[in-house]
Order: sequence, then structure tokens, then C-alpha cells
Amino acid sequence: MLRLYDLAGAEDERRFSPYCWRIRMALAHKGLPVETIAWRFTDKSAIAPSGQGRVPVLVDGKQWLHESWDIACYLEDRHPEGPSLFGGPQGRALSRLYSHLGDWINGQLVRLLVCDIHDHLDERDRAYFRESREQRFGAPLEVIAADRESRLPAIRDSLAPLRATLQHQPFFGGTEPLYADYAIFGAFQWARAISPLAILASDDPLAHWRERLLDAHGGLARSSPGYDR
Amino acid sequence: MLRLYDLAGAEDERRFSPYCWRIRMALAHKGLPVETIAWRFTDKSAIAPSGQGRVPVLVDGKQWLHESWDIACYLEDRHPEGPSLFGGPQGRALSRLYSHLGDWINGQLVRLLVCDIHDHLDERDRAYFRESREQRFGAPLEVIAADRESRLPAIRDSLAPLRATLQHQPFFGGTEPLYADYAIFGAFQWARAISPLAILASDDPLAHWRERLLDAHGGLARSSPGYDR
Repeated sequence: MLRLYDLAGAEDERRFSPYCWRIRMALAHKGLPVETIAWRFTDKSAIAPSGQGRVPVLVDGKQWLHESWDIACYLEDRHPEGPSLFGGPQGRALSRLYSHLGDWINGQLVRLLVCDIHDHLDERDRAYFRESREQRFGAPLEVIAADRESRLPAIRDSLAPLRATLQHQPFFGGTEPLYADYAIFGAFQWARAISPLAILASDDPLAHWRERLLDAHGGLARSSPGYDR
Repeated sequence: MLRLYDLAGAEDERRFSPYCWRIRMALAHKGLPVETIAWRFTDKSAIAPSGQGRVPVLVDGKQWLHESWDIACYLEDRHPEGPSLFGGPQGRALSRLYSHLGDWINGQLVRLLVCDIHDHLDERDRAYFRESREQRFGAPLEVIAADRESRLPAIRDSLAPLRATLQHQPFFGGTEPLYADYAIFGAFQWARAISPLAILASDDPLAHWRERLLDAHGGLARSSPGYDR
């Protein structure tokens, strides 16, 4: 049985890492059962065998894997019989940009969400999170997230190429989702898990696409605690 | 023989449409010979059989095709025996975002390049171009392009996901370019054709990728008049 260390908030069930969600969706896509383990930022020792300190970490027998892109490639290569995550070698190459676009969206959203994240963390993680993020961004969490509604329009504008694509097809992967979809979806599932802020307008084609992915794989993502708007 | 109506400046040889360059590269990728016809903005009657007024317009026998994405799909379906532009059906779906990303980059760059474009146009196109663009942007060309160097850093920053991808692989399509590459490359080949402005820093991985595409297909893009930096 595969095991996935999966970032959790104060409640074990509130799973909110955008990178872990990529892998949760990829595992479901492949039809691979997994035991997820609620993990907190300060549980570094639990994942020490992976050689680093961040999740997702996937354990397959004696193998410890990390980095969402590398885990996705591992799953594709180890289980070629399941539905493909990429649609062939060129599809894999074309998917890598989506992974970096997802990272970029995460980087835009984190400045809006830092206080929400903090408020949903387990007590033992709060000081670590505040200190590390305030150092990274050079300001108190409350300043980083201040006046966030005024920054939403620019973020929504920056998603225009994604939006335009979804006016032609239901998923980035075409008629069915691929890893490319999960790489972007992670950002929105993260926001949904910890914030009441409406990142997307309800009539945005990206919001409709997000709904389709919330329903995918038996409603895996929708069944996780979050703010539905 | 295929014929392509291809946007030209005052000199017949200065071909500068980012959308036409997508198709020039796609035709070369497929190994399809083409006769290109220097076309100007105001030559609407020449392409009237396409049912609209913009290039690229490709003529294949009695068929008149327009819209770069639709032309690329036509070439792939009509010539399945040549090297694929997409890498299969999922690759085609995944490529569509690249087309919209290319459009988005064009939209960023046009505000920097409008005066350069104007200055390279044939006399008969200048008034049309000035009037239509000043109406679109609500300002004189010289105001749209003013202080453009100060806007370059933000544009370069916005290309971060593309840059990060090319730190892992030589082309968006992997080890060889695909249509996804040409969709983005068109923006840079357009800028190269009409402006001395260095859109990319010389040590940018995107600049190295651009060099590889200038060399691709026998140096097709490099042999076209432009500003090499």
C-alpha cells in the first residue's frame, strides 16, 4: 500500500497543500489506493528518510519519493497500465509548463492567503509558519495579506490564457483531465481548503472547470473540508 | 503548392506577424513547401475568399484557411505522415494553452512595439495602423510606447513559468520543438523583426531557447530580416 504524507491543519481532515493535492488527484487518476497521513510543517523527522523536509512525500515499499513532478513521473513510469497522466512522451514534456504555472499561481495566492493558512494550522505549527513566512516576505502576515481584495482583479487578469483555453475544451488535457489539470487545480483546492475568499468569479470558465475537478474521481476533492462558494 | 499570405513591412522580405511565424515554423516542421506572399494590412481584398481580413491565410487548392490554431490543426490532420506538431490527441489539447499564452505575450509586447511596427510599415499601411491601434489603445502610438524600458522588468518577470520549464528541457515539446514552441516563439520573432529593443536578457534561458528556434529548420527564422542582439 502506498503511503502519502499530506499537509494537514488543526483538524486531521483539513488537507490543504497545493502540491499534495496534485498527487492525491494523480493517484486517483491512476486508480491507485493510498493511505494518507496527516502531516504538519514541524513534523520534519517523520519524513526524514526522504532526505528533505517538505511534502508531498510518497512511500512505495522501501522507496521514499518527494517533489510533486518527480512523483507524478514515477507513478506514470511505475504504472504504465493505468490511465496516462500525460498522454505520451510529448504530452509529458508539454505538461511541465503547467507544473510551473501552478507554482506561479501558488506564489500569487500565498500573499492573499497567509493569514487564513495561519489560522487553520495546528498550534504546534503556528510559530514556525509565522516566523518562516514573515522572513520570506519581509513583513508581518497581517501586512502581507492586507487589502487583498484590491489585488484580486490583477490576479484574475493574469489567468486570461488559462481561461481562454477552457472556452474551447473542458480540461487542459482535453475531454478528460490530465496531470496538467491537477497541477493547476492544486492552487484552487488549497485556497478552497483554508479561505472564504472567492479567488474566482462564479461565472469564470475556470470556476466551472474547478467544479468539474471537484467532482472528478468520485468527488475526492469536494469531500475534503473547505469553503464552497 | 501551398500558399501563405504573410504580413510584410515596407520591404517584401521583412515578415513580422507573430501568428504567421507560427505557421511558417509549423509548415517547415511538417516538411511542407510553401509559397509565401508578402501581404499588407490594407490588402483586404487579396484574402477576401477566406471570409475575414487577417493573416495568416493559407491556401491549399480550393481551400482558404485562417486562424493560426485552426491552420495548425488542419496541417496535422491533412498530413499525419509528417512529424507531429502536437504529439497525439492529448498533446494537441495540452498545446492549446500555449497558443493562448503566445497571444497573451503578444498583447504585452505590442504596447512596447507599436512605434517600431509603424516605422517598418509600407507607406500605404501607416495611416490604417496608426488609426486602428490608437483607437484600440485610446492613446497616440508614441504615448503607448513611452518609457517602455521601465515596463520590461515586469514583462520578463511574467515569463517566469516559461523560463523555469526551459531549465529542465530544451523545448516546451521536450527534446524537439512542437507547435507549442512555435506559438510562443512567434512573439519573439515578431519583436526581432521590427525592434532593436532587447525583450530578453542575453543570459535568459528563454533567449537560449529562442536561439535554438532561430537555428531550427535550416535557420528559417534567422534568415529573415531582423535585429539580432
